Amino acid sequence: MPIEPPKSKAAKRLVVLDGPRAGGAVWLIGAGPGDPELLTVKACRVLATADVVVHDGLVSPAVLDLAPAAARRISVAKRKAHHSYDQEDINRLLIALAREGLVVARLKGGDPFVFGRGGEEVAACRAAGVECQVIPGVTAALAASAAAGAPLTHRGSAQAVTFVTGHATGDAEPELDWRTLATANQTVVIYMGLSKAALIAARLIDAGRAPSTPALIVENVSLPHERRIATRLDGLGDATAGLDGPALLMIGEAMALARADAPPSLPFMGREGGAAIRVGKC
Amino acid sequence: MPIEPPKSKAAKRLVVLDGPRAGGAVWLIGAGPGDPELLTVKACRVLATADVVVHDGLVSPAVLDLAPAAARRISVAKRKAHHSYDQEDINRLLIALAREGLVVARLKGGDPFVFGRGGEEVAACRAAGVECQVIPGVTAALAASAAAGAPLTHRGSAQAVTFVTGHATGDAEPELDWRTLATANQTVVIYMGLSKAALIAARLIDAGRAPSTPALIVENVSLPHERRIATRLDGLGDATAGLDGPALLMIGEAMALARADAPPSLPFMGREGGAAIRVGKC
Repeated sequence: MPIEPPKSKAAKRLVVLDGPRAGGAVWLIGAGPGDPELLTVKACRVLATADVVVHDGLVSPAVLDLAPAAARRISVAKRKAHHSYDQEDINRLLIALAREGLVVARLKGGDPFVFGRGGEEVAACRAAGVECQVIPGVTAALAASAAAGAPLTHRGSAQAVTFVTGHATGDAEPELDWRTLATANQTVVIYMGLSKAALIAARLIDAGRAPSTPALIVENVSLPHERRIATRLDGLGDATAGLDGPALLMIGEAMALARADAPPSLPFMGREGGAAIRVGKC
Repeated sequence: MPIEPPKSKAAKRLVVLDGPRAGGAVWLIGAGPGDPELLTVKACRVLATADVVVHDGLVSPAVLDLAPAAARRISVAKRKAHHSYDQEDINRLLIALAREGLVVARLKGGDPFVFGRGGEEVAACRAAGVECQVIPGVTAALAASAAAGAPLTHRGSAQAVTFVTGHATGDAEPELDWRTLATANQTVVIYMGLSKAALIAARLIDAGRAPSTPALIVENVSLPHERRIATRLDGLGDATAGLDGPALLMIGEAMALARADAPPSLPFMGREGGAAIRVGKC
């Protein structure tokens, strides 16, 4: 079926529609939490062969640097003030690029299938007959818990872990099942919940979660300026004061094990004399 | 504080206790789901410098091959018939090895903090004053959903994703909060639930989850012999017949997007002419 050209001006400028060519494919790639060392080997290698990189705002510059210098880079970051691309535009862009015969690396922060809207992009590619592969990534919750030394599941204090999003437009409340999330003995990780932290805490307490439940806030997960704040559920709102980077709210009994004071990414302690090893080429 | 020597015969043979030496550390490393390409770059590099590798049964041989040939490899696989190592023994082993001044790569399938008992090992190292770092990994649910093209979260059909374990000894029931897991509009991923699949499905249906809820079983996630079965919640028990490898049960409306027929790991479609790129050295 013919695809429609992108609607927005920004998208129109970037796509040349001159009919399908062979060899194109979309790789939906989990870019991990930010630290390029937390990419998978597969992500790293496929990225290194891309003709074009289509990326979200949360993908760090250090990760983008792993693509060939000659690869075109297209940011489809959703800005609060004006959405340069809506999801439909992004879908059309990916399809159009693949039909030009290009290897398209669609980079998403974390894992493509955890709050990444990756399912919509896969479905659009499938409907258009465009080859689309997915490479999983380390979702931010895993990296945040690893760095803090606080397990997501733990004998006796966390028999389950749940990921939800706290995102809601303007003054709206996130549509979450508070009763379910208030169950004890589980870790709840809230993505994109920073601006609603006080509300989320109040709702969870209303639904029965203990106000003293340990909580951890992690901003800029895995980046050199990662910040960790250990608090309690009833202190969650106050603890977010002054934070404005992307952040996770992690709530649950096992968060009592978090070390808020450990540095974001400890240097490698092996034979290299303590120097952190960084990714060069994959 | 002095550590006790390991209790079991197998553990005793492997540890030489001759007092603490400097430079030792434990790296708790997520080995990912099995495909060595799904290791993180960081995991791969640290593993390549290990003096000793202590690994679970689920870590694939291809991943173990990434450690130096000279590194000692110690399997602490828990066997059903006889536990060669219990968790206390493993903790003591890690501490003793690090105190010998060794770089210890403690490899765990998936992510160390998702059903890996990593929290217990970190706590034991901390208590003993042994340096312990955690490297996150791609937990099996992420890899299974990526390969099947079925997102864990999805607009309109999965606003949350929950990981639980279906493990229970003998005839015991897994201790799960069925009411919470039966809530619609979420994906529930059950690790180690194969032998209890029929029971789990029955409990979820009793608790109110629709019998027609799409379900996906993925055995041997990310390995060449990965097997995927798309079914419904009420067919989950029957669908597990004949499976005996490690498997995930994935239940939720978004699993309707799963492609059960896609090959386990599609060949790379880029410029390399379709040949899958495999990890050699990191």
